[in-house]
Amino acid sequence: MNCQAACFKANRDLVTNGLAQFTWGNASIVDRAENIVLIKPSGVAYERLTETELVAVRLGDGSLVNTDGLRPSSDTPTHLVLYRSWPQIGGIVHTHSEYATAYSQVEMDLIAEGTTHADYFRGDIPCTRQLTLDEVNGAYEENTGHCIVEEFTRRDINPLEIPACLIRQHGPFSWGKTVEDAVHHATVLERLARMALHSRCLSQQFHRIPNFLLDRHYLRKNGPAASYGQGSALKKN
Amino acid sequence: MNCQAACFKANRDLVTNGLAQFTWGNASIVDRAENIVLIKPSGVAYERLTETELVAVRLGDGSLVNTDGLRPSSDTPTHLVLYRSWPQIGGIVHTHSEYATAYSQVEMDLIAEGTTHADYFRGDIPCTRQLTLDEVNGAYEENTGHCIVEEFTRRDINPLEIPACLIRQHGPFSWGKTVEDAVHHATVLERLARMALHSRCLSQQFHRIPNFLLDRHYLRKNGPAASYGQGSALKKN
Amino acid sequence: MNCQAACFKANRDLVTNGLAQFTWGNASIVDRAENIVLIKPSGVAYERLTETELVAVRLGDGSLVNTDGLRPSSDTPTHLVLYRSWPQIGGIVHTHSEYATAYSQVEMDLIAEGTTHADYFRGDIPCTRQLTLDEVNGAYEENTGHCIVEEFTRRDINPLEIPACLIRQHGPFSWGKTVEDAVHHATVLERLARMALHSRCLSQQFHRIPNFLLDRHYLRKNGPAASYGQGSALKKN
Amino acid sequence: MNCQAACFKANRDLVTNGLAQFTWGNASIVDRAENIVLIKPSGVAYERLTETELVAVRLGDGSLVNTDGLRPSSDTPTHLVLYRSWPQIGGIVHTHSEYATAYSQVEMDLIAEGTTHADYFRGDIPCTRQLTLDEVNGAYEENTGHCIVEEFTRRDINPLEIPACLIRQHGPFSWGKTVEDAVHHATVLERLARMALHSRCLSQQFHRIPNFLLDRHYLRKNGPAASYGQGSALKKN
Repeated sequence: MNCQAACFKANRDLVTNGLAQFTWGNASIVDRAENIVLIKPSGVAYERLTETELVAVRLGDGSLVNTDGLRPSSDTPTHLVLYRSWPQIGGIVHTHSEYATAYSQVEMDLIAEGTTHADYFRGDIPCTRQLTLDEVNGAYEENTGHCIVEEFTRRDINPLEIPACLIRQHGPFSWGKTVEDAVHHATVLERLARMALHSRCLSQQFHRIPNFLLDRHYLRKNGPAASYGQGSALKKN
Repeated sequence: MNCQAACFKANRDLVTNGLAQFTWGNASIVDRAENIVLIKPSGVAYERLTETELVAVRLGDGSLVNTDGLRPSSDTPTHLVLYRSWPQIGGIVHTHSEYATAYSQVEMDLIAEGTTHADYFRGDIPCTRQLTLDEVNGAYEENTGHCIVEEFTRRDINPLEIPACLIRQHGPFSWGKTVEDAVHHATVLERLARMALHSRCLSQQFHRIPNFLLDRHYLRKNGPAASYGQGSALKKN
Repeated sequence: MNCQAACFKANRDLVTNGLAQFTWGNASIVDRAENIVLIKPSGVAYERLTETELVAVRLGDGSLVNTDGLRPSSDTPTHLVLYRSWPQIGGIVHTHSEYATAYSQVEMDLIAEGTTHADYFRGDIPCTRQLTLDEVNGAYEENTGHCIVEEFTRRDINPLEIPACLIRQHGPFSWGKTVEDAVHHATVLERLARMALHSRCLSQQFHRIPNFLLDRHYLRKNGPAASYGQGSALKKN
Repeated sequence: MNCQAACFKANRDLVTNGLAQFTWGNASIVDRAENIVLIKPSGVAYERLTETELVAVRLGDGSLVNTDGLRPSSDTPTHLVLYRSWPQIGGIVHTHSEYATAYSQVEMDLIAEGTTHADYFRGDIPCTRQLTLDEVNGAYEENTGHCIVEEFTRRDINPLEIPACLIRQHGPFSWGKTVEDAVHHATVLERLARMALHSRCLSQQFHRIPNFLLDRHYLRKNGPAASYGQGSALKKN
């Protein structure tokens, strides 16, 4: 699948997976060879979106490749900062998915409380700090990107090991090696947020799993020594 | 789309969007040139409603335009008060949508806790005061309208900047320049109420966003300086 | 629609309305002229139920009209007690619907906290007392019926004004003049239970509406002076 | 239905019943005559799973019957321990179903709070103890099985009377005489977990039902003296 088809499918999958409605959220893909980012146009409802309406911008300066096309998503500067900071990622998704956003709104990390979490995220999913007045009144969307990177740097997190972040008072961003992974991580994140919220209804105390269980599950499913799944040699279909 | 078609579509969209069932709720539209309001008939189930059954009443005194038609919604006097008080609105929606109604029942404003809220509502969505014995036993539905207007006046709120209200112990009303906007605001309100309720399950403390973030998002998407969306010049489809 | 068709439709509507699954719950209808009650057979899954499988029992002693047919629902004795005690009711529904059952499980009345409740139920929906060891080990299902009637008598409730009850640690029963009404009341009850539970997530304090508002809504929609709906004279379709 | 068809249907029913998505969870069946266990392959998404991809392993040592087929589920050693320890069971299901997993995450038994629970499970559904560092770093999946059996032995529970267990910080396992029963128990467990969680939103105090009511319901529906359902003699279809 080429970049345009993959990016279009990712945007549509946000709706199919119940993560987006109306014009909320966006998915983007980066072409590292061409230094081009493809992203959803701003304010276009998903059900009307067509593949050719995706907007191409230059990774370096965010300028439009085609100056008489649609405007890119207003969140484009956030995507660009992440692509520039983390060369290992290939796709980014932003949503206002219901449960993950609830965490953003109360400014809480999503604590790793079970093996479902550990199968995908090697630790708590961080919530960013509050942006300052100057950051909001200035290059707001770009500063959101810097704030995410700052959080990951400060906590020394590998963004491929914890491929999502909760933006304080806003909502989640997720990413991956591919945009398909980014969508999957957004979907799993929402599910984890639901389960953790249910856990809170049962007990206000957090129950973080021990590191040895976190790593056992994460490494069983991810990385070179993964035993989960069929591996390349054994795969039959 | 003419008034009748728009009003019929709005009533049906309440069901499609999961905001209404049975005979609960109603949508209306005002024709400012003719001083006529079209509204759902009383007690008719949505699935049986036909476009010609919508009831026309005079904006001035609420009298029936067609005296041998159906009765208008029992909430008609509330709609009329809002249309008379706020000439800038063109459509109104009332529902008993599940989450917004929960706020009405516990007599709480819906606090602006995130940017999803700020994208549509420039501040907290107010819950009205309790109606008095005399107001309930008198012209109850009309008094409900006065109570909404009183709340907006007292708090000095522009009804187009916060196009919804929670009626204490009852449920939400929303409105907009068009009835289509009114339905959209009712839908977003329900979604916001869900997310805020989830936030409450995580933390009983409210997390109101700072005004500078509220305004940044509200003004990015609304008003003359909005940068969100395609604008009229750039719109391609 | 005859009794059999109405009773079959009621049982199927429990599934359609999301109130029942598997073999849980049952709907019955009484033929007052013949002193016969028709009820769902025991342990038959809804999706396999056929109209002719409904079981007829005598109102007086619960004996089978057709001795080589299926066994009636194990809850039949509860239905019979209610039909005998309350001649004004014509249909009964029992479910384990998710939210109403949660109230039964924590032994709480469903407090009238809003006008949605008041439109259908003229006051709190009672939860019964705990059955004793002897009542459970004896004629358990019949004693459940007596316990419901005892609760309504003790609180001096007209069963047509509050047409539902929460059985402690079990689930809801509802009823009405017709079995169609009984299903509608079961559906509204579940919706009210959802909204009240959401209200509890926002505030642990109950917010019972004042009697004047309760009566205003109840009497607007029910009884001889009802102004809601089209009335018989005005009804066009 | 043969073993392969039954096991395939069970795996698909997990998705149909809303208990599984992506590659999460698995169902297995044991052939006691042949000492063979059939189980879902590891990491294969349900929507792509075909009947012939199910993996056969030997009950005794877990070795592959067909060495050039797919790898079995990574949870296979857990299934094998349960089959070996409890000869009376014929099928096992593991899921990360949303509400039951929330209980696992906060390390709580699922208390029997109502008759819906008592109709299927003769007492609280236990949550296992935390696995130790050595157990996790060693034969983790096999140790999970031992931990379940240890819990049932310690509490002196008959696994057919309480056919499910919550694995601490992980999720539920359920089982039954047949794999069809195991799926049904997983489905009912999830429903019970939802209702119990709703009960917690209403009251943080548990409301365990008395033993005489628990047994009345359990024995009405299960065991030789069951009066619920049609029995073999009376069954018409």
